[in-house]
Amino acid sequence: MAGSSFGNIFKITTWGESHGKALGVVVDGCPAGLLLCEEDIQRYLDRRKPGTSSITTQRKEDDRVEILSGIFEGKTTGTPISMMVRNTSQISKDYGNIATCYRPGHADYTFDQKYGFRDYRGGGRSSGRETIGRVAAGAIAAKLLSEMGVTVQAYTRSIGPIEADLTDFDEKAILETPTAMPDRTANEKAVLYLEEARKRTESVGGCMECRVTGLPAGIGDPVFEKLDANLAKAIMSIGAVKAVEIGDGHTVSSRFGSENNDAFRMKDGQVVKSTNHAGGVLGGISDGDVLLLRAYVKPTPSIYLSQQTVNQNGEEIDLMIQGRHDPVIVPRAVVVMECMTAITVLDAMMLNMTSRAEYLVNFYLRN
Amino acid sequence: MAGSSFGNIFKITTWGESHGKALGVVVDGCPAGLLLCEEDIQRYLDRRKPGTSSITTQRKEDDRVEILSGIFEGKTTGTPISMMVRNTSQISKDYGNIATCYRPGHADYTFDQKYGFRDYRGGGRSSGRETIGRVAAGAIAAKLLSEMGVTVQAYTRSIGPIEADLTDFDEKAILETPTAMPDRTANEKAVLYLEEARKRTESVGGCMECRVTGLPAGIGDPVFEKLDANLAKAIMSIGAVKAVEIGDGHTVSSRFGSENNDAFRMKDGQVVKSTNHAGGVLGGISDGDVLLLRAYVKPTPSIYLSQQTVNQNGEEIDLMIQGRHDPVIVPRAVVVMECMTAITVLDAMMLNMTSRAEYLVNFYLRN
Amino acid sequence: MAGSSFGNIFKITTWGESHGKALGVVVDGCPAGLLLCEEDIQRYLDRRKPGTSSITTQRKEDDRVEILSGIFEGKTTGTPISMMVRNTSQISKDYGNIATCYRPGHADYTFDQKYGFRDYRGGGRSSGRETIGRVAAGAIAAKLLSEMGVTVQAYTRSIGPIEADLTDFDEKAILETPTAMPDRTANEKAVLYLEEARKRTESVGGCMECRVTGLPAGIGDPVFEKLDANLAKAIMSIGAVKAVEIGDGHTVSSRFGSENNDAFRMKDGQVVKSTNHAGGVLGGISDGDVLLLRAYVKPTPSIYLSQQTVNQNGEEIDLMIQGRHDPVIVPRAVVVMECMTAITVLDAMMLNMTSRAEYLVNFYLRN
Amino acid sequence: MAGSSFGNIFKITTWGESHGKALGVVVDGCPAGLLLCEEDIQRYLDRRKPGTSSITTQRKEDDRVEILSGIFEGKTTGTPISMMVRNTSQISKDYGNIATCYRPGHADYTFDQKYGFRDYRGGGRSSGRETIGRVAAGAIAAKLLSEMGVTVQAYTRSIGPIEADLTDFDEKAILETPTAMPDRTANEKAVLYLEEARKRTESVGGCMECRVTGLPAGIGDPVFEKLDANLAKAIMSIGAVKAVEIGDGHTVSSRFGSENNDAFRMKDGQVVKSTNHAGGVLGGISDGDVLLLRAYVKPTPSIYLSQQTVNQNGEEIDLMIQGRHDPVIVPRAVVVMECMTAITVLDAMMLNMTSRAEYLVNFYLRN
Repeated sequence: MAGSSFGNIFKITTWGESHGKALGVVVDGCPAGLLLCEEDIQRYLDRRKPGTSSITTQRKEDDRVEILSGIFEGKTTGTPISMMVRNTSQISKDYGNIATCYRPGHADYTFDQKYGFRDYRGGGRSSGRETIGRVAAGAIAAKLLSEMGVTVQAYTRSIGPIEADLTDFDEKAILETPTAMPDRTANEKAVLYLEEARKRTESVGGCMECRVTGLPAGIGDPVFEKLDANLAKAIMSIGAVKAVEIGDGHTVSSRFGSENNDAFRMKDGQVVKSTNHAGGVLGGISDGDVLLLRAYVKPTPSIYLSQQTVNQNGEEIDLMIQGRHDPVIVPRAVVVMECMTAITVLDAMMLNMTSRAEYLVNFYLRN
Repeated sequence: MAGSSFGNIFKITTWGESHGKALGVVVDGCPAGLLLCEEDIQRYLDRRKPGTSSITTQRKEDDRVEILSGIFEGKTTGTPISMMVRNTSQISKDYGNIATCYRPGHADYTFDQKYGFRDYRGGGRSSGRETIGRVAAGAIAAKLLSEMGVTVQAYTRSIGPIEADLTDFDEKAILETPTAMPDRTANEKAVLYLEEARKRTESVGGCMECRVTGLPAGIGDPVFEKLDANLAKAIMSIGAVKAVEIGDGHTVSSRFGSENNDAFRMKDGQVVKSTNHAGGVLGGISDGDVLLLRAYVKPTPSIYLSQQTVNQNGEEIDLMIQGRHDPVIVPRAVVVMECMTAITVLDAMMLNMTSRAEYLVNFYLRN
Repeated sequence: MAGSSFGNIFKITTWGESHGKALGVVVDGCPAGLLLCEEDIQRYLDRRKPGTSSITTQRKEDDRVEILSGIFEGKTTGTPISMMVRNTSQISKDYGNIATCYRPGHADYTFDQKYGFRDYRGGGRSSGRETIGRVAAGAIAAKLLSEMGVTVQAYTRSIGPIEADLTDFDEKAILETPTAMPDRTANEKAVLYLEEARKRTESVGGCMECRVTGLPAGIGDPVFEKLDANLAKAIMSIGAVKAVEIGDGHTVSSRFGSENNDAFRMKDGQVVKSTNHAGGVLGGISDGDVLLLRAYVKPTPSIYLSQQTVNQNGEEIDLMIQGRHDPVIVPRAVVVMECMTAITVLDAMMLNMTSRAEYLVNFYLRN
Repeated sequence: MAGSSFGNIFKITTWGESHGKALGVVVDGCPAGLLLCEEDIQRYLDRRKPGTSSITTQRKEDDRVEILSGIFEGKTTGTPISMMVRNTSQISKDYGNIATCYRPGHADYTFDQKYGFRDYRGGGRSSGRETIGRVAAGAIAAKLLSEMGVTVQAYTRSIGPIEADLTDFDEKAILETPTAMPDRTANEKAVLYLEEARKRTESVGGCMECRVTGLPAGIGDPVFEKLDANLAKAIMSIGAVKAVEIGDGHTVSSRFGSENNDAFRMKDGQVVKSTNHAGGVLGGISDGDVLLLRAYVKPTPSIYLSQQTVNQNGEEIDLMIQGRHDPVIVPRAVVVMECMTAITVLDAMMLNMTSRAEYLVNFYLRN
């Protein structure tokens, strides 16, 4: 099937390969009248840019976005917004045995099995560069959400064994530290840990978290289109993510009911929960509390160590992957998680506008 | 939005409330010519039936399926298969304060926020009885998959702190023990644990796992329609699931790349992996290995203990939930996980049939 | 693929065969809070009931609808509304050569080619009885539309060469005459014409029209989801329809631009069109004028005359189709056209609620 | 909603405005391994190019396509194919009163009503230039279809009152005459007719037809996804089309059943129809005969004659539309009809591959 579209009303379609001419996205269903310029998008793209610290790949990726359609006089027109980033630094080179062998932990083998052959340059469509389109689209979703009072923020929860302490949540640190942790002390430890790993030409895994605040209760649908089910898909679709959690996640499995239930209370005339084990969702529908998501990310599969594998001819070989690779994926993936969450939440809010007959009647008899 | 449909080609639409007249499902897109009778469905429905042991609710739910369409002369016709289960034992009764108050951990509050009111009888649409439709549909998917050599099997991995030992995987025990564990020793411990919890009118959480064997490499799509992304949605859409994992799941976040990568090797002329940390998926596409999924389930929110909550009038109250409730959801949810997995995998296999131009050309120039 | 679902937000899924146990529909995405009872549905189903005059089949089809889910305390709950009609008068009988031969003008041959075999009883899934589900769903859409001031009305425009005169549009005659014409004089002529045709065991074709009034400007999307494009699909999906038109339809092809353009004028402070050649749609979006659709219907293919055909063994045979058939399809199809139009228009109105950023902001910052 | 995507498995998403930076399309779901180059696309785009004769607009539109992704080593990779055409000759100019008034027959008023404002340059998204994306995508669909033995061919049936005689169908004339008629005599008459109309600064309507040959029986689904229903949507979604027909279309409404039914006969061991009033579809599924479609197109709404209209301030004004406009839309729209048909038919053929259980079993147990 298609596979490159996501969303129902706010629908995005990404395209492009790591070493092709360009990568991009078409955002269809964005409402008209939103102020939008390339700088709004660029700000988000810059967060996934490598080469800004010792812990990311030293490849130069100067990704500049160009908006090709859907904007007139500085505002969205309601028609598709097409955005493109030209591949400029993806130098044509000798790909050596990458072209014919199957790198462990990568999609080389599975692409060949599915399609019969593959664009082997830099991973082709399975490259992390595919997320350029997601981030460009997510920047728009986040901007529209912010006009509705909804904020989406992702950050690094842990890198290897180093975990951020969230008690003094340092929001600024997310954008200012190379690890995207909201804790500068943990950030420093993680940087040391990564440098150590890099020396051994190793890679490490980590965990990222995302919080949505300001989301009203009632968003999401029962049964299959549960808000958390769609978020699980959105986040699991990010390469290298192997587990997705909502609220207290896997830890609930060893709890008693009396420990895990969140009591409802009144506060300032509003229904609130006294705890948030649920992570802001009950029965697939937002409960007005902070939405809390977590994703566990595997270590970068490209490592400069000898690995056993096979090639296209079915011969067993040893492989060392050269090139400039991130020792950890998490810090650059945080903005991708944030963007996928924003897109999913916005789409659910749009769909929710028809949940009651009175909403339709009011809309059409008033507008 | 709709929200009660799942799947692209093999598409299911469930309907019905806990205490309404009936519950059911329409399965559209099932290929013609599959032998199918009510007993094929009933076998699966019986696995989610309560009241068969001390550790499930003592409610009587004698759910008999009736196939209303889509079968002729014992075979599927290719047209929609409509299946229905009448609600027989859902006695009309005084729902007391359930009708007006918000049970902690349930969807009462969020339904009211979304829809303005709710069918409060037995949880209405958010009841676990909604899964009747999923299981009836999944039974069909599983039958068709088995004709293609693909087997889907879910089981209980843990209940509270009691974990099944999978080294001597006892397949028969899954269907024969009340806990659905593939380990009779762990089952006995878990039963004792549950009886203890029940005495304290507590509920407990647990973990379930699902394995798909016989799945060829190449199934699933890159980007948003990754096989694991769709499975994450499918499984997170089951009520009470708070975390979904593929392969080694959350544990990968503290690993090194060299530990986590699975080496490719040749075996009997086939490409195989020497380990399966990945859980059978690389880049969102099946790699020919066993597909391994895990879901963490929260404790049953209905407990006969005093809980703080609020009612529809915004008054803070104390609530004790009477009625017959499962002390743990997992054993009855295992078949739901199995069915959602089967539906997702079958749909992906159908979509995969057009992945190469040569497949189309061969199909149409030969058939 | 599936094929039995229609609509995006207001989504219907029909099921059932002519001579199976039952037929029905699941309506998913209906907003909560709409007053709805079985009588609201039955009124529409009765309009497609045969046997009420000399010009319809003498088969007895006493179709009683049962609502199985989605209603609580007389109102829609926002969850799927499942509706069913049991097949009661479809007597098991000897289908004779119908089971093995291909009736001209019917789907027997194409079903066999697609699915390998077919439920031959009464046409199976390709029977006109499939429209029971469409009509039951359309009754709900029409009720909700009427609360928003939108009225959908279909009627018979012509039967064979007998055309209704619309200058004195007799709205009551639509429901009171056997032909569903809004012109009692033409109705009488058409009845005579049909009786004459029936004597010769012939069938005849006709034309039906549908008007939507009260529809605001701005409904429908540019490009593929044009309001008229979706209506064309909705109406062409009704069996026996061979042409669909909007506004002046096929006659525009021989016009000059100055004749065909509708001038805009002001009336009571509103933009209006001085003529309506366009039929209420410009660029795929409603223009505030009356929406006008037309469908041309072929003669009933079942005729009691000797016809040349072949059977499943590839033998050429002569066939006379016995049984009770409508001499013309149009009068009973009028309500189907009305219902498909209502469903399509309602869905487009729902989708339109997110066309401007200000609509979202107002909705969420106010509600 | 979105609105700019079409298709289920072979899915296209178009973007771009008349006078924006560029226009394009993303084709997702194209199978891997199809030989494809820019020249394959350009050949189709050139057919919608104006300025090649006296009867089209004298605007210069030198539309060169650039393939941005989805091709590797000359073959499709199975990932999205992004194609773009830069707008080069759309000169920034003074749009005068076009910016503020509502042109009769255009979408200016309806866009303003829907979105609150519009990109008024050259019609923006409602411009005929939007079809660039459709044609680029259709060229791929047509190429893949041709590998399966399926040919799609559209042509002009009539211009104003001048109708092509199809008895000596001159296939070459379609590409060689300015009118795209398969009849050189009618072409000459039509050219004269158009020159006459142009002198009076008038525009005219016309009719186009499309034939699909080589299509096997069994394509399309019953109920809503009927092949003719999807084609009706596809073709009605082309701007200026006001009526869509299959087979004998609107003329069937005045026929008797015995005239309209197509007899089945045997020929060379194959089931064939002795006539083709049905146009190749029975019950929404292809019958193996030639698929025949017809679309009626309104006169170009832009005419250099004084017309009554209103402006955005609600003032009644007189308007003369200057600029270079086609006196008739049909000759340039023929390739658009051909492409939309190709996309629809290909998608239906893809979906059909899962219609029988044996197809799946054979595919997976053999491949």
